[in-house]
Order: sequence, then C-alpha cells, then structure tokens
Amino acid sequence: MPNESSPNSLIAFETLESNVRTYSRSFPVVFRKSEGAILEDEEGRQYVDFLSGAGVLNYGHNDRDFLNHAMQYLNANGIVQGLDMATSAKREFLEYFDEIILRPRGLKYRFQFTGPTGANAVEAALKLARKVTGRSSIISFTNGFHGVTLGALAVTGNRYYRDAGGIPPGGAVFMPYDGYWGPSNDTSRFLQKVLDDGSSGVDLPAAVILETVQAEGGIRPASKEWLQSVERLCRDNGILLIVDDIQAGCGRTGDFFSFEFAELSPDVVLLSKSLSGCGLPLSLLLLKPGLDIWQPGEHSGTFRGNNLALITATAALRKYWASEELSALVKKTGHTMRERLREIRNQDRRLAVRGRGMMLGLDCGTGELTEKIVRNAFEEGLVVERCGAEDEVIKLLPPLTIDQQTLQRGLDILEESVNAALNVVPDPATVLEK
Amino acid sequence: MPNESSPNSLIAFETLESNVRTYSRSFPVVFRKSEGAILEDEEGRQYVDFLSGAGVLNYGHNDRDFLNHAMQYLNANGIVQGLDMATSAKREFLEYFDEIILRPRGLKYRFQFTGPTGANAVEAALKLARKVTGRSSIISFTNGFHGVTLGALAVTGNRYYRDAGGIPPGGAVFMPYDGYWGPSNDTSRFLQKVLDDGSSGVDLPAAVILETVQAEGGIRPASKEWLQSVERLCRDNGILLIVDDIQAGCGRTGDFFSFEFAELSPDVVLLSKSLSGCGLPLSLLLLKPGLDIWQPGEHSGTFRGNNLALITATAALRKYWASEELSALVKKTGHTMRERLREIRNQDRRLAVRGRGMMLGLDCGTGELTEKIVRNAFEEGLVVERCGAEDEVIKLLPPLTIDQQTLQRGLDILEESVNAALNVVPDPATVLEK
Amino acid sequence: MPNESSPNSLIAFETLESNVRTYSRSFPVVFRKSEGAILEDEEGRQYVDFLSGAGVLNYGHNDRDFLNHAMQYLNANGIVQGLDMATSAKREFLEYFDEIILRPRGLKYRFQFTGPTGANAVEAALKLARKVTGRSSIISFTNGFHGVTLGALAVTGNRYYRDAGGIPPGGAVFMPYDGYWGPSNDTSRFLQKVLDDGSSGVDLPAAVILETVQAEGGIRPASKEWLQSVERLCRDNGILLIVDDIQAGCGRTGDFFSFEFAELSPDVVLLSKSLSGCGLPLSLLLLKPGLDIWQPGEHSGTFRGNNLALITATAALRKYWASEELSALVKKTGHTMRERLREIRNQDRRLAVRGRGMMLGLDCGTGELTEKIVRNAFEEGLVVERCGAEDEVIKLLPPLTIDQQTLQRGLDILEESVNAALNVVPDPATVLEK
Amino acid sequence: MPNESSPNSLIAFETLESNVRTYSRSFPVVFRKSEGAILEDEEGRQYVDFLSGAGVLNYGHNDRDFLNHAMQYLNANGIVQGLDMATSAKREFLEYFDEIILRPRGLKYRFQFTGPTGANAVEAALKLARKVTGRSSIISFTNGFHGVTLGALAVTGNRYYRDAGGIPPGGAVFMPYDGYWGPSNDTSRFLQKVLDDGSSGVDLPAAVILETVQAEGGIRPASKEWLQSVERLCRDNGILLIVDDIQAGCGRTGDFFSFEFAELSPDVVLLSKSLSGCGLPLSLLLLKPGLDIWQPGEHSGTFRGNNLALITATAALRKYWASEELSALVKKTGHTMRERLREIRNQDRRLAVRGRGMMLGLDCGTGELTEKIVRNAFEEGLVVERCGAEDEVIKLLPPLTIDQQTLQRGLDILEESVNAALNVVPDPATVLEK
Repeated sequence: MPNESSPNSLIAFETLESNVRTYSRSFPVVFRKSEGAILEDEEGRQYVDFLSGAGVLNYGHNDRDFLNHAMQYLNANGIVQGLDMATSAKREFLEYFDEIILRPRGLKYRFQFTGPTGANAVEAALKLARKVTGRSSIISFTNGFHGVTLGALAVTGNRYYRDAGGIPPGGAVFMPYDGYWGPSNDTSRFLQKVLDDGSSGVDLPAAVILETVQAEGGIRPASKEWLQSVERLCRDNGILLIVDDIQAGCGRTGDFFSFEFAELSPDVVLLSKSLSGCGLPLSLLLLKPGLDIWQPGEHSGTFRGNNLALITATAALRKYWASEELSALVKKTGHTMRERLREIRNQDRRLAVRGRGMMLGLDCGTGELTEKIVRNAFEEGLVVERCGAEDEVIKLLPPLTIDQQTLQRGLDILEESVNAALNVVPDPATVLEK
Repeated sequence: MPNESSPNSLIAFETLESNVRTYSRSFPVVFRKSEGAILEDEEGRQYVDFLSGAGVLNYGHNDRDFLNHAMQYLNANGIVQGLDMATSAKREFLEYFDEIILRPRGLKYRFQFTGPTGANAVEAALKLARKVTGRSSIISFTNGFHGVTLGALAVTGNRYYRDAGGIPPGGAVFMPYDGYWGPSNDTSRFLQKVLDDGSSGVDLPAAVILETVQAEGGIRPASKEWLQSVERLCRDNGILLIVDDIQAGCGRTGDFFSFEFAELSPDVVLLSKSLSGCGLPLSLLLLKPGLDIWQPGEHSGTFRGNNLALITATAALRKYWASEELSALVKKTGHTMRERLREIRNQDRRLAVRGRGMMLGLDCGTGELTEKIVRNAFEEGLVVERCGAEDEVIKLLPPLTIDQQTLQRGLDILEESVNAALNVVPDPATVLEK
Repeated sequence: MPNESSPNSLIAFETLESNVRTYSRSFPVVFRKSEGAILEDEEGRQYVDFLSGAGVLNYGHNDRDFLNHAMQYLNANGIVQGLDMATSAKREFLEYFDEIILRPRGLKYRFQFTGPTGANAVEAALKLARKVTGRSSIISFTNGFHGVTLGALAVTGNRYYRDAGGIPPGGAVFMPYDGYWGPSNDTSRFLQKVLDDGSSGVDLPAAVILETVQAEGGIRPASKEWLQSVERLCRDNGILLIVDDIQAGCGRTGDFFSFEFAELSPDVVLLSKSLSGCGLPLSLLLLKPGLDIWQPGEHSGTFRGNNLALITATAALRKYWASEELSALVKKTGHTMRERLREIRNQDRRLAVRGRGMMLGLDCGTGELTEKIVRNAFEEGLVVERCGAEDEVIKLLPPLTIDQQTLQRGLDILEESVNAALNVVPDPATVLEK
Repeated sequence: MPNESSPNSLIAFETLESNVRTYSRSFPVVFRKSEGAILEDEEGRQYVDFLSGAGVLNYGHNDRDFLNHAMQYLNANGIVQGLDMATSAKREFLEYFDEIILRPRGLKYRFQFTGPTGANAVEAALKLARKVTGRSSIISFTNGFHGVTLGALAVTGNRYYRDAGGIPPGGAVFMPYDGYWGPSNDTSRFLQKVLDDGSSGVDLPAAVILETVQAEGGIRPASKEWLQSVERLCRDNGILLIVDDIQAGCGRTGDFFSFEFAELSPDVVLLSKSLSGCGLPLSLLLLKPGLDIWQPGEHSGTFRGNNLALITATAALRKYWASEELSALVKKTGHTMRERLREIRNQDRRLAVRGRGMMLGLDCGTGELTEKIVRNAFEEGLVVERCGAEDEVIKLLPPLTIDQQTLQRGLDILEESVNAALNVVPDPATVLEK
C-alpha cells in the first residue's frame, strides 16, 4: 500500500525501478519538497542544491511566480497538449522570446519545437544540417555530450554511453576540443588541416556541433578565439555551426546564450533544460531563416507543443530577461564562487578550477577523490554531482538566483568535504617526495 | 507586441515558427481553451475533438481531478524536476501502477522512465534488446510507426520521415504486417521462413517491435492468432518482443494494454501519450525483470523524472483503472462508433472501416478524398486527422470519456463531410461504368 | 624442404595455411595436374571434375589453344601487368567482345575492368548505382550470393558469411526470390507492393541485383515472367537492374549471358569466373553507356588490367563464341544431365532437380545427406560440391566441353553415391509410415 | 575489325571502355611489349618505367626465369585454377616462403590467400580483427590508402575515392600519421590520449591499420620510434596491428617487409602487388597463429588460389630472397636515387624529397606543377606517376632490378622535366620578392 512506506524508504525503487536508475543511488533518500535552492527529503532534512536538476533549475525550485502563471492557466482550461497546433500560449512565447531575447541581440531565428528532450533537439538539428548540405558526417568534439538517442549518441564522446548503444553510433567524427592537446596546440588549426586536406580521411561534414562550455565532459570552457576560429572554418566550408546551449544557455554563463561573449552567430542553437523555468520538459531549436527548408512534419513528436511549459517559459523571460539584473547577478555570484574555489584549490596541487559564469568545476584528478567528496557533502547537506570522463570533476550548478547565505553554506560544506577527502586520499606525488 | 495580436491571427506562427509546423496548417485557428472533448479557439468557436492530441488525451482535456492533484502538488512545493532521484511522487506511481495495473493482470515488470517522448522509450528498448541479445538487427513491420529520432526512425516505415533523416536509417528489417499480402497469406509464416532460412539475408534480430493496432500506419489491427504466432517465433529464436503501446495503450482499445486480448506477454512494453492523463510529457518502458541488465545511467535523459506528470498519472490510474468501468465504456462507445462508421461506409464502395475499441479508421482509399473530408469537418466544427501512407485513412481517436451527445455531434459532422466529399470526388470505377 | 613432402601430404596446409581453407578439407588430396574435365592428384589418381573451379572452367582445364596464346604472348614479352593502361591485348579484347558478343545480341555496353574478383565487380556496380540514382539502398534476393567484401556482403543472403563480417553489413534489403513463398505467390508482386507503398519501410533502392539462376543459393532458376516483372519494376521506379552473371554467364546456361532467354536488358552486367577461359582472374562490368558517369579512377584496383587473362579471354571468344556450336552443345548436354538426374530423383521423394542448361542441382533436402553423397563420390573419383543455405543441394557444374564418356562416368559415380547415401540415411517419413 | 586499328590508336578505349579508365589518359599510347624497366608502345617507342605497375613489378617486366617456370607449369598441365584446393604449387609456396622469408626473420605466421586484390586482403584483415576483438571500429591514418571496396574504403583517407562510395564508408576513425601535425608533435601521443580518454569519442578499435611508408598518400615514411609507439599502444589496448605491406613490401624499402627496420611484430601483414613477381594477381594475408580463429570458408573468393601466380611467386623468392644481394642493391640504388633527387630539390625551395629504399617521392607542392612534369617526362620517354591528396608528389618506383644506365636515363628525363616545369610555373614567393 503506497501510503504505508516508511519515510525515505527506497524499497519501491529497488524492487520496481530498473537498474538504470542513477541519482537515487547517489542521493539515497526520498525527496518530497523543494524551494529555491533547497531540497527536502521525507524526513524533513534539507539540502542545499548545487545540482539544479543538471541545469534545469537556473531560477531555482518552484518559483512562485512561474507556478502561479501555470495554475492560472490550468484553472482557465488552457490548452495543455496541442501537438503543434497554434495556441495562444505558444504565440505569446514566440512573440515575447523574439522581442526580449532575439531582437535586442540582433539575432534572427525561426523556432522549432521538438519532442521535449535535449536529445530530440539534437536529432532534429543533425537532420536539418544533413538535409541542407547534402552531406552526412558531423563533427563533434572530445568530451562533448549531446544525448543518448542513436543520432545524438553519435556525437557524444563518452564510451560508457556509446558502448550501451548496442550498435556502433555512426556518422560523426571527433576533433580535439579547445585545450585538448596541451596549451600550445591550437586545436582549431588541426581541424582546419583535416578539413583542407582532401586525404585526411575526414569527410566534409554537414555540421559542427559544440558546447561553448562542455558540461558533462568536465566543465571545459572554450576560448573566444577558438570558438571564432571554428565558426570561421564552418563559414569557409559551408558547414553549419550548431551550438548546443542546452546546459550552458538560459543565463548559466551570465548571458542568455553562452556564445554571446564570443560574438558567434550560430546557424542553429539548441535550448532545453532551464527554458521552461521550472523543470517542465521543453526543447527548442532556433534556426536561421534561410536554413528553414523543412517540409511540414518532417520532424515530429507528440509532446513538441508542451503548452504549460510555454506558459512558465514566458513567465521566466518576463521576470528575469527584461532587464540586465540577472546577468549582472550571475557574473557577481560566479565571481564569488570562483574566488572561493580558488582558495580550496590552493590547498592541493591536484585540484584545478574551470568554468564560466555560474557553471564551475573543481577538477580533482580522479573519480576516487570526487566520490568521497560528493558522498561526504551529501551527508553534510549538499547535493552536488560529478562530471568528466572519469567523474573526476565536481560540477557546481547552483540556481542562478541562490541567496548569498545558502551559497556560502553550500560552499562551506564543499570545502569541508574536499578537505576531509584530501586527508583520506593523500597526493601520491607528495607521498613519493617524502 | 504580444497582446495586440488579433484573435486567431497566425502571423506569429508563419513568421517565427519553422516550416516544419504541421497541425497549425490543418487547423488554421489559434486554440485557447479546452475541456473534455471540446477545443475552443480565440474567437470562442468550439470544436469536437476526435484527435485527442494524437492519442494523448484518452481522458479528455483538463480533467479537473487530475489538475487539482497537480495544483495541490505545486502548492505544496512538490518536486517538479528531479532527474531520476527518488521522490515521493515517483514512489507512489510505482507502487500504485504495480498494484492496480500489473498484479491484477499477472504481469511482472521493472519500470524505466526515459526522456518523455515515445521515441526515447523506443530508443531505450532497442538498446536494451541489442545489449541483451548481442545482436544488432531489429525487425519492424510495414506501416509501423515508432518515432523519428535516428534509432527509432530505423523501425518506422514511412518514407516521408525516413527520407528526412539525412542518412539512411540502418539496423532494421521490415516484414509484412498482418494482412499486408492479402487475406490468404499468413505473413507470420513468411517471418518464420526468413528466420529459419540461414540464407534469407534476414539476420537474426535482437527484437521484434510492433503495434497491435498500427496507428499512424492507417489504423490496422493485427489478429490474435497472428500476434501469438509472432510471439512464438520470438520465443523460439531468442528474440525480444517489444510492444509499442504508446498510442494503443492506456485504455484506447478497451483494455489498459492493447495486447491483453491476445494474451501476449511482451518482453518490453512502451507507454507514453495518455500515461500522464492530461497531456504532460511522460514515457515509460516496462521490462521483464530478467532482462534488466542495464548499468546505472546507461540510458539517461534530463526530463526522465517528470514528477508533475507522475502525480497526474497516478490520479488517472486511481480515477479510471481501479474498476472495470472505463473498459466497459470504451467497448460500448467503440461499438457505437463502429456501427455508425459502417453506415457511412455502406454508402460508397471505396470506404472501409478498421480498428479496435475506440481506435477506429475510415479508409477512403486516397488522400485526396480524406483531405476534403477533414477540411470540411474542421469548418463544421470537428477536429479529426488522417493517417496511412497516403493519408488515406480518417483516424478517429475521441477521448474515451466523451459523452454520447458530443460523440454523435462529431459523427454527424463526419458523415456530412464524407458525403460532401464523395459527391465532389466521384468513384472513378462508377464513372467508368456509366 | 618442399620437395621432400610425401605425395598427397597435407601437413604443410594444416600447419601453415589458415583455418579458413575449405576445399582442401572437402577434397583431402594434393592436386598436381588437370586437363579437360579431369583432375589428377600427386599419387596419379584421376577425378572427374563436376565443380570446374566453382564455374571458372566452363571450357575445361588447360585448354591447349588458350594456353598456347598465353605462352606466345609471354614469349613475345607482352604486357602482363599494366594497371589500366591501353594495351594491344586489351584493345583486341574490347573490339572482339563487342563484335562477337554484344553486337549480334543488339547490346550496347561500356566495359569496366575491376579488380579481378567477382566481389570487386559487385562493389563497383553498387557504387555506380548509388552515384547514378543518389539513393543508397540496394535490393537483393533471398538466397542471393554476390561476394564477401563489405559492400558485396550486404547483398549476400547467407548468414554464415554475413556473421563473419564483424559489423552488420548495411544498405541492402532482401526480397523473396522467385518461388520463395510457394508456387502460388508471385513474389515480384510483393516487390511491387513494397515499392509502391510509401510506408512499407523499404526505401526506394538504387538498384536491384540478382542472379537469373542462383548458384550458391541452391541452383534456383527464376522464370522468364518473374525476371521480366522485376525488370519492369526497375524501369518504372528508376532503379538500376544489375545482373550478376558471374557464375551463370559465359555459356553456362546455354547462351553467353544467362538472361538472354528472358530478353532482359540489364543496366549493368557482371562477368568474371569463366571469362578468361582458363582460370586466370578477370572481372568485367558491362554498363549502359548512359550510366557511365564515372570520373577517372573513381573505382580503381591494381590488377584491373590482367592482360594475360585478356589474351586467353579473347582466345576463348574466338574458339567458342564465333558460332552457335557451343550453345547447342550445352543445351544438349544439359538435357542429357537433367534426364539422368530425374532418374536418380525418381528413386526417392526427398530429391528434386533444378536448374538451367549445364547448371543443375540435385536438392537432397538436408546437408547430412549431401555430405555423405559428396564424400562418397570423391572416394569414387568425382569432384562435386554442395550449395544452398544448409548445403542441401548437389551442384553440378561440369565443364561445358566435357565429353560424353567422362560425363557418364561422373553421373554413374554420382548415382551410386546417392544410392549409397539414401540407404544409409532412410527417409524419416517412410520410416514413420512403417 | 581488331587487327586493323592503327598503331597507338585509342579509339577502341574511348568508345568502349568506361570513363573510369585513368592510366590510358596519363599515357595516351598503346603499350605492346615490356622487358625489365622498359615499356614499348605500338609504334616501337620505348619508355623507362618508373611506375612499375604501381609497385607490382619490383623485379621488372617479364623476368625470363619467372616466365619459364610459368610456361613449364602450363606445359605440364599444372593446376591453374583450384579455388583453395591443396595443390603441389601452393604447398611449395607455403613451405618455401616459410623457410626463406619467415623463419630467418623469426616470424611465425599462418597464410590466408584471399581474392587476388589488395582490397580483398584488407577486407579479410578487418573482418578478422573484428571477429577476434568483438569491437567494430578500426583506426586508420590520414593519407592512408587501403583500397576502394566498401570495407577497405572506410580506412582509405582520400575523399575522391570516399565520395565515390555512394554511401558513407563507416567503421573507421582517422588519426594523424607521423609528422601530420608538424615536426614537434608526436602524433602517437595524440593517439594514446584519445585511446586512454574514455570521453574522447574515439571508441576502442579492433585494429590499427597502417602503411610504414604511405604510398598513394604522398610517399610519407613513418619513423621507427613512431611505429614502435603505435605498436605499443596496440599491445596495451588489445588492438590488432595490421601492416598493409601491399606496396611497400616485397623488397621495395630494402628489406622484404617494410617494417623490419622498426623491428615490429604485426599481428597481420598484407602482401600483394609484387608478390607473384611478374604481375599476376595474388594476395596474401599473414596472421599470427593465435589469431587464426576463422571458420572454414568464412572469407572466400573464387580466385583465391591463383596457382600460376604461386609458381612465379616461388620462383621470385628463389631467385631474389635466398641471399642478401637484392636488399643490398635496393639500398644502394635507393641511395643513388635520393642523392640525385636532392640535387634536383636544391634547385627550388618548393621541392622536397621523401621516402625509404627505392620508394621515393619528390614533393612539388602542387598538382599543377607535377602535371606538367609528368606530361613532359612522358613525352621524353619516362613513365612516372603522381600521388598525394593533390597529386602534388612525383612517385618514383622503378623496378628494384633496374640497371644503372636505364635508371640514370630516367632520372635525367625527370630532372629536365622538373626544370622545364619550374621555369613555366615560377615560385609565387620568389615572384613576390622581386
């Protein structure tokens, strides 16, 4: 009988949910409530949230303004599910996004709503690129992550996911991301060489897909220069540039789009995660009007018009993107976090800090170390996750709207957890020196 | 300025939304409200809904009970987005679904929540089948539709979608569905022959994926005998049987699962569309416990834990599946619809009626005819869509809970529209006879 | 020391040659000499050859006329290897083949010499078809065999070879060959249905590739009507028709090309095996001039100009194709063989006879039975092989030029071997009846 | 009428042979005879041959000793075509190759004869690697060339060939060859990084395939250190090392195998081209006994037992590899050639010399320049070809047995042709300086 489960009991999950489940292993409690940057479990214990649903909750949990809009809409019998019918809710979103986000940035895009997963937007973008160019190959980058459906998996670097595909994911070629081959090698020049060289074995691709800050790949930011070089190579070779802004977009790096600092003009931009503002599934593909050669319905999907999510998405734009305040706040809070992380890093030469805005990583070198840190942190009341090929990086993605006090509480727990773990796992090099 | 758009104006969609949009072309108004089986546009005009979000709204639009649960949850700061963390909402769903759906039917499955699109569940199922069997090929059927991401597209028959893939979707082989090669050919015996024949060119597949009633393929129901033969072939050859119940499940054919009438025991069952009860995106894969060889996180997806949808999904189970009432109703209403459709059919030899439960199709032979019918129906206040390779079938999917009066209104409009179209497009054979 | 091996010793093969070797297992002696239809081993034992190098030796072993031309050429320092340079030898072949084979039959083709394996010609044909049509898929038929390089393997039906490919061979779809689904089903109509049906899951192919008599697939001849239907479907859908005449061509069925009886006009014809006349490797692709859109060197291969083989090929054309004599002889000898096989067949209801011209098969139902027959036959002095998915068919391919006495000797041995095997392996049905 | 063509007339080739022909365009005469390093056309004009059938004629044209063995064999009715039956000719080759080539070098391999094209050997090697490792991907290198059948094409870098494939050749990843990313980057370390990095997007491959001197790719030799690093990476990761010695083997670099100088121990070695000694098609795969997990006939091919070629191959081993003389000669002649090429290079800064043994390239920077050189050389009586992605390299592959006088004649013509071309196409840099 459902209601009789004891608080935080995981039995139902262990017996009924597939082995594929993962976060319920990392955080073995049952969550019941959440607000702002705080999660609460069934025993009433509270946790600072530095995970934010893997980037879904840039504006925090359960923003009352967003939810009120949603409830008002439901009370008014607004359309919840409408495939891609025209609805009042969608029109408002289209017009407002165009007015408040695109026009002020001098951007001109068409909107394509796909099935509400990031992977679905990636699949649509790759299809479109192949259709536009008549080419089949896609260039992705080392440590890139773009989803796990077959088309998206092909451009995702991680072997753990790739091997699970059952058949080899084809159609993509991986190039070294910025910084991948040491600081002195500009890897965009390697890309240029293989594109220019008719005998490199690298076919001219339909598109280059990239994150400006690699998230799952280990919080790896690309430099402005590198991004601009890649964009230039795309232009020179008739290659579409797709920026996957699913995790880094919607303000995470300080600007609405993560590529604004580099003044890119991507052919296709992918948004999802924080787009709806409150965790409702929504995915969006922005494409340059000249590329919009889709035939009606060529890419479809039942839930591509998630109107309730469009309502909260519009509410989020109204509340946070009509002015520059949030941007300024993110940059300030990001700076605070980075300063604190640097202090932590200075304690041990194994550590490194990377990132942009409020998308920061503490690279600890090994998954062994981060596992200890993360487990310890959770016990102390902080939800934080790891990323990178070996889970060697602590990924910090607090809500952009987190208050100073909660932020400091989270960072305090993190610091203590790092220190505790460092003491348990001594630096092998230091040990050797002695 | 958003608020200044005139009612039903489509300008924003035409200028800002991609050409890929489709339903806003079929139904060129802007919908604002909906309730039960009724949609309302911005000018206050009402439409009977025989489309139900392509099968998403089996329980009608905006069921107050479901929405009240949802709003209560939001008011209590329930977890909206939790990746696949353990939450109270998910536990309740797991336990209740097990108790009310699986156990009474003698079924034992593990639950895997995927990204909330049907295609994502299909992708996960194919991965799992390949992982379990070590084989790579999948058998699908003529006219099958399973989604448009690259892995799912490979098992979708329609060339319009396939050609849009940009690269040839590989890894699947199509076999003739029940009835595909005339009434005297049992196509399951053809399947048997190519499986048994080591030189047929058809590799032993990891899985067979099928719909028990093909929806997009033209409302084509398979017989009990054929389904059982296919299941037996799967057992004999170590092939997983995947039933895609995304459109036919959740009561559409009268039972909760569409395969109950044939007493199948699929290895994997896919649910989505009407699962959340009110149009919120949710996808679920049910897999036999012995096949649950997933490693943690091998198939992932940000929105795989759509908790608000789990809340409404549980509410739907409670309201409609604790008793046999809905099943009985669906069978009764389905019977009524079928009788009426047969009357319509009897007017013209080009017409045919097919389907099970409240999933019925009126095959009109050509897309030219159905286009006229559907357009006419919309003008008269009925939202209904077409399916089949040539859009030659009128697909009737009213909410299962539709009241008699609204149903009759819809059927009346349909009949008039059919008659009008038949008059305009005379039967070429009849014409010749004259 | 090589010369010290005892006669017929297989030690060198067992210790130095890969396990992949196969005929040296079926015929475990060491062959030293051959002439006409006779092979001789190192102990001087002679064998009637009903295998003919799997169809390579239509004119028998070591035709003195051919070899004299070859040796004259070598003595004159003729070009042996010239890539695809223009040589006197190639010019003579081109002109003579055109004069003696193509023109009298009203055929107009361009010649493409590929790497001297049948598979290489198949690969080139598939490339060309894809290039010409812009489509990627190829339709092949159940039991078809076209080689084992990756591109060719995709159109080869046999799982034994397919599984050995290491990666799933993609890009081909298998349709039922003539007679595959019982005598009452015209499988060309099934092909028509899936081509016409935009939702069949079968993409419009670049080409259909077929053998008019399937050789390795079990000596299965297609009817004139079926072949013409398939050709018509190709014309109607802009699909190239590729006839793989590698085994059935060069006179094996009575005419030079195996498709002459059906009055086909294939877009591409593949020849190899007996083309050089004496077993020297040579492959040729004949393509309709309008399809010759190759760029120079797009398909290449070091040994594509095997001039010594061109010399003997021209000699073979001169000796055997300037008149109708060989054709008449093949038809007569084929008739004799078929009569004798029918007598053998009449002894046991498990047996069946199939084929055209001197390409005949005795279907024995199981590989167990044929294994016994073939082993017994070899012991009695007959080299004959098996084919079919289960090796259930005895394949009879004696040299077209075999004399009556040797032919009868071979058939006598075969009959005795069949009888002996039938006695050892009684008909299970008969046994049950008792 | 064949015999009436006027000398050197190309009409038959232009009207009957496919556009795919290539060398008959570069050398627009009709060749009739050849001996040693000399080709002769139908008008009796003689040409020094620096092409040697693209590496097929290491021992020169029509070596009398080889041909006498061949003719003796034909006169004795030796087996010409025997599929892969055991024959006296094959046994002698197996034993002698083992005795004279493998044992003295401490090598232990099994022999697999494939269809007699290099591509077929490549296809077999890739299959075997996939079968042995259970992995599907193959690593190849920039500028690598391994043939144009679909499996082989996947590991061939050149886009001209790749694009002609019609479907994207899958299953291979290209890594930078030695020297590809400038002299200071050890590209084997990049390979190590992507193999070690679980998130590089580069799947662990079944095999690495490489040429120790890239031939078609532009005469690019790899260093001993680099080759050894790659071999070590293969060992460390359970990856098979396949050395494609089709062009560089059989003495071309001075040793019988091109990898001897680096003391490699490849898992699989591919030989073809010069193996038969006189241009007869033959291909051989040497595999380590422990990898010989083939099932009988899993890779097959009609002409895999080209016995006449085995006879001449054994003759070539006897004549040239029983002592060290040829090796010494190649090194000496290679030195002479290189000295002369350096003199030529010193005349113009656009030129560069590369290679090992008698496999040398003069890199001229552009295909425009080499086209002039090669055309001019042909007019002056030298047959020489180009290689590299842009045909920018003059490839020098004279017979290893060429006499000094003919060699000097060829080099004289080359030098004059280079000078003439340099005068016509001035160095743009120099021009600018003025």
